[in-house]
Amino acid sequence: MIRVAIIGASGYTGAESIRIILRHSEAELVYLTALPEECGAVGDVFPQFKGRCDLAIEPLDLDKLSGTADVALCCLPHKVSMGFVPKLLTAGLKVIDFSADYRLKDVKVYEEFYEVKHTDTANLARAVFGLPELLRRQIKDAELVANPGCYPTGALLAIAPLLREGLIKTDSIIVNAVTGVSGAGKNPSSKFHFPNMNENLFAYGIGSHRHMPEMEQIAGEIAGTDVQILFQPHVGPFDRGILSTVYCQPVCHSERSEESHGEKVGSEQLLRLYNDFYSAEPFVQIHKDAPAVKDVAGTNYCHIFVTCVKGRIVCFSAIDNLVKGASGQAIQNMNIIFGLDEKLGLL
Amino acid sequence: MIRVAIIGASGYTGAESIRIILRHSEAELVYLTALPEECGAVGDVFPQFKGRCDLAIEPLDLDKLSGTADVALCCLPHKVSMGFVPKLLTAGLKVIDFSADYRLKDVKVYEEFYEVKHTDTANLARAVFGLPELLRRQIKDAELVANPGCYPTGALLAIAPLLREGLIKTDSIIVNAVTGVSGAGKNPSSKFHFPNMNENLFAYGIGSHRHMPEMEQIAGEIAGTDVQILFQPHVGPFDRGILSTVYCQPVCHSERSEESHGEKVGSEQLLRLYNDFYSAEPFVQIHKDAPAVKDVAGTNYCHIFVTCVKGRIVCFSAIDNLVKGASGQAIQNMNIIFGLDEKLGLL
Amino acid sequence: MIRVAIIGASGYTGAESIRIILRHSEAELVYLTALPEECGAVGDVFPQFKGRCDLAIEPLDLDKLSGTADVALCCLPHKVSMGFVPKLLTAGLKVIDFSADYRLKDVKVYEEFYEVKHTDTANLARAVFGLPELLRRQIKDAELVANPGCYPTGALLAIAPLLREGLIKTDSIIVNAVTGVSGAGKNPSSKFHFPNMNENLFAYGIGSHRHMPEMEQIAGEIAGTDVQILFQPHVGPFDRGILSTVYCQPVCHSERSEESHGEKVGSEQLLRLYNDFYSAEPFVQIHKDAPAVKDVAGTNYCHIFVTCVKGRIVCFSAIDNLVKGASGQAIQNMNIIFGLDEKLGLL
Amino acid sequence: MIRVAIIGASGYTGAESIRIILRHSEAELVYLTALPEECGAVGDVFPQFKGRCDLAIEPLDLDKLSGTADVALCCLPHKVSMGFVPKLLTAGLKVIDFSADYRLKDVKVYEEFYEVKHTDTANLARAVFGLPELLRRQIKDAELVANPGCYPTGALLAIAPLLREGLIKTDSIIVNAVTGVSGAGKNPSSKFHFPNMNENLFAYGIGSHRHMPEMEQIAGEIAGTDVQILFQPHVGPFDRGILSTVYCQPVCHSERSEESHGEKVGSEQLLRLYNDFYSAEPFVQIHKDAPAVKDVAGTNYCHIFVTCVKGRIVCFSAIDNLVKGASGQAIQNMNIIFGLDEKLGLL
Repeated sequence: MIRVAIIGASGYTGAESIRIILRHSEAELVYLTALPEECGAVGDVFPQFKGRCDLAIEPLDLDKLSGTADVALCCLPHKVSMGFVPKLLTAGLKVIDFSADYRLKDVKVYEEFYEVKHTDTANLARAVFGLPELLRRQIKDAELVANPGCYPTGALLAIAPLLREGLIKTDSIIVNAVTGVSGAGKNPSSKFHFPNMNENLFAYGIGSHRHMPEMEQIAGEIAGTDVQILFQPHVGPFDRGILSTVYCQPVCHSERSEESHGEKVGSEQLLRLYNDFYSAEPFVQIHKDAPAVKDVAGTNYCHIFVTCVKGRIVCFSAIDNLVKGASGQAIQNMNIIFGLDEKLGLL
Repeated sequence: MIRVAIIGASGYTGAESIRIILRHSEAELVYLTALPEECGAVGDVFPQFKGRCDLAIEPLDLDKLSGTADVALCCLPHKVSMGFVPKLLTAGLKVIDFSADYRLKDVKVYEEFYEVKHTDTANLARAVFGLPELLRRQIKDAELVANPGCYPTGALLAIAPLLREGLIKTDSIIVNAVTGVSGAGKNPSSKFHFPNMNENLFAYGIGSHRHMPEMEQIAGEIAGTDVQILFQPHVGPFDRGILSTVYCQPVCHSERSEESHGEKVGSEQLLRLYNDFYSAEPFVQIHKDAPAVKDVAGTNYCHIFVTCVKGRIVCFSAIDNLVKGASGQAIQNMNIIFGLDEKLGLL
Repeated sequence: MIRVAIIGASGYTGAESIRIILRHSEAELVYLTALPEECGAVGDVFPQFKGRCDLAIEPLDLDKLSGTADVALCCLPHKVSMGFVPKLLTAGLKVIDFSADYRLKDVKVYEEFYEVKHTDTANLARAVFGLPELLRRQIKDAELVANPGCYPTGALLAIAPLLREGLIKTDSIIVNAVTGVSGAGKNPSSKFHFPNMNENLFAYGIGSHRHMPEMEQIAGEIAGTDVQILFQPHVGPFDRGILSTVYCQPVCHSERSEESHGEKVGSEQLLRLYNDFYSAEPFVQIHKDAPAVKDVAGTNYCHIFVTCVKGRIVCFSAIDNLVKGASGQAIQNMNIIFGLDEKLGLL
Repeated sequence: MIRVAIIGASGYTGAESIRIILRHSEAELVYLTALPEECGAVGDVFPQFKGRCDLAIEPLDLDKLSGTADVALCCLPHKVSMGFVPKLLTAGLKVIDFSADYRLKDVKVYEEFYEVKHTDTANLARAVFGLPELLRRQIKDAELVANPGCYPTGALLAIAPLLREGLIKTDSIIVNAVTGVSGAGKNPSSKFHFPNMNENLFAYGIGSHRHMPEMEQIAGEIAGTDVQILFQPHVGPFDRGILSTVYCQPVCHSERSEESHGEKVGSEQLLRLYNDFYSAEPFVQIHKDAPAVKDVAGTNYCHIFVTCVKGRIVCFSAIDNLVKGASGQAIQNMNIIFGLDEKLGLL
């Protein structure tokens, strides 16, 4: 049994990780930590786990952690995480970090978007971006996985085949996404107070969302060239899910390196490409029509549809932001690192 | 034109009052106040009023108020209100107070349930409970109206005909109610954070809700005898509305003063009674089936159904907690006080 | 591996049963049936299962069924079910029937409430009511389990300890319940059209809901005497869950058979009683405050709170109507019948 | 008093029109019609109007209509409408038609998208597209107004200033929109069954939505040149509102006819342009941040924000699809035609 510690277990991704590990046949929870004021019996902190988990959430004690656990799911916030991850690694644990602290390889970009100095650049250099469908091989040997952001997961899975095949212009990708409110975390605020958020929908993070550089970095690695993405997130009145609608411009035939002999890429071809690209992936399903967030809610699946519209390629992807966009993907990464069946706990 | 001031205009009942007065043909907003940190142009504090109202919400200045307004809708919280109402009255305004401070005639009950000393018992004695369908005559001449609580409005309208006719036992009334979340006010909290409240439903205030004594007081006045009510509120995942389901025991025939000669009160009879009782009331509608909160949302109407089930009388009423349960009823009271058509602004 | 067939797999309880069996470590889906017009690959009928289940839903073929499966989860509608259950039993399968056809022991009551002649009274006599917390021993040996209705499950678990201990009057129990909309099934209708049901809440089945006699029958068995229940269901704007609020009258001391020496039953005592009564039950959790439907959504748990208010005993229970109220409980029953750990697939 | 008939009053836009006219100080409902099976007292067809409107909805009788009403709000479906509008005009009424039948000036485009022969091309030629902010002068003298589609209203208001100023490329506009479910009309369907639509979000009408040519036609008129729009609608789990997020490419400086001297158009400039463009418009409000659908729900307002992001211009607009996107705009048009204050009934 893989012994799992969850660092920062008192938030939504902590709860979701607990939920998944509880039904994982080859992993067990051994240690849960949080800030002192958020500690207590799991069933008190999260009434949904009453009778399902006997552990308590405790303040972090590194001595106790070391030797107790094999892996840490580190659910701490951005900027806080990089203060703890080095210690977790030193304690001999594999670490899957949910924060953005180890995702952006370019320290300058990190420091610009997160407005703080990066204090652990050594580990940043070693960290692997934990998107198994694109980087499984590297994840296998990683000691530190930077678990991807929820939006980048949905958007990158939606366009990866196009980028790898060089089918789209890399300077004009538009990612329009709508997330459920759990993406905003558990802290109450006026914006997400029920009577304000219910029956509402609005854009936010206009031109400045921190997932934009993250998408561009990985998209650039896939494409082998610089990628520019206009990413516009919105939040809608539902708990879980991200629907990404991605608008791409196909490269002109003359611009493509392949021998496409003047043939336009059609919707059928695109679906074939996507089916091939993801044929071995258990958690990516290619649909023949628009995916719906409710079909993936509570699951680790990503549903994708792609088609041509008015000379553009439009991709749609749906994920659960807390599962494939956070805790589920983290455990998928954990399964890969420990050589388990990737799907354990996630069906 | 009646000149209206709203004291404490920055909350949900303030906004609802603004919305209604804006389309009132014989009343106009002249002065809006709030705590300094919640002041600003109406369109900034409430984006829904952008372009619809040129006023600013300002800190209260009693000198400015006096002479400017004819009536104050006082939307201050319980306990705060009784510190201001005397000043508003002294300034020569009629006052319609939304708080509970002037509702409970028995100071001891007030002090027990609100855990504070009542500091304005003189005005308490003069205040009229503002439920027009039952107390219109008194309201007409009132200088200070205690606008009823949302739950008491729904529950009392549901059972008033039974109480007045002496048809039910007064020691065993059960009021089971479900409110929308706007009833909790605008301040964010963990319970009402969207991802916690959405898709949720739970009871609260078990055995201790402050609207219980309020219901009992007015029910007692209607019945002419002491009334005991077990009131159990719940909150559900919607913005507006209260559905009250009231379970009553019919009095045995021998217990009734009327000459009912052993005839059971039937559902048809009850509907006739209710239709008669409320025949002149513009805002109470008797249905032939269960009322739905959505049908009254955004309106000042109360929809009622009553029937016999297994030897009991069961009453259902639906109101919008922010309109008939607060701001709409306040403006209905205002219309009465100023001799206007009671329905102005409320259709 | 227990081989599971689902008869009538195309509805919500079918989908929920599929979801649970897919992660059951000792049971597997072998055969799924539905009406011809609702057949097809599981991933087409239910997009949420795309890539998770390779089976197709097919028209029922009894020859194929016999020998293929060990147990049938029969998710057919009331009245239809009793036409198929005898054949499933003859085919040698254990049957867990989701319909009401085998729940009401009194054929006359069945025929009154379901307005149809009962055509399988022989099996009706043998059927065991599948509420494990109260009837586990009988379930163990059953060939045919009548899986309880969703409302009776929630209400009976809420009051069973009181009934067994003889603490409440059995002629005046009021069950006020609110269900999520999935309880209405998958067929579209005007009432449950999103723009009509969203932001709405209303009572239905006033005085006539079919779960009333079902509650009364089992409550009567627990109490050892005739029980009268006034059951009033409501539907609210959420997917899953039933919150039952049950109002009971404590028996007067002189009326109680026990030697209670004039001591009133208090809230603390009640909680102790409930904790004892359910101490060995994995799926019933006693809370210290009001339970919330969201905490049990998607799970097989029942959360309960009980307290004294104004001379009455008020019980609150929350379940997921599709899990503990249907498919989860069916699989709990299946686990019991086949001697498996009762919790398999349900954590 | 303007006498208003509503033809096809039994749907959502009919109800919304009734609601608005009921509080219109210079218009009154005189005649409401629907298919025979949807007729009845207004308070029975729409319980929300019980006690608020004494009329009945009746089958259409043209003789009765003629002479009774001054204007018809024709809420019939596409394709049906053009069979009735000529008769309404012949009967001497002004007609405001909610369907698409008189919106597309190019009959071929109409016939392609609506797959039916246009049977009233004479009136089509005379019809005025009823978007007051852009076409007020023409509306004033119209006998037949084609009330705009909900999506075109939101999208066109969002980009009209850019189109008129020639600031964006007209061949690469992307309109990404999310609507509430009331946009789908009142007829129940599986997609919009509450348990399917709640907590859901998905795209539809991919590449084929009928509002695309409508947007392009009017956008072309504003721009004075052919305009290509990629319009992608989505539906989300709320009742009312459309949020349009429009992605535009600014024209290169050399391409612009104006003397822009190489200066990039900045966000500040854009906001100034929008504020100027709409300065006299009561129902268009320019925000300094992203608009929210809840702020316009139930109102005739359009809230807009515009900014520059990564070399593109991104516009956001929010309207209520049933009000500014349908009935409110129709009544705004009616007010214009009859020389009334444009805002009557709409505040």
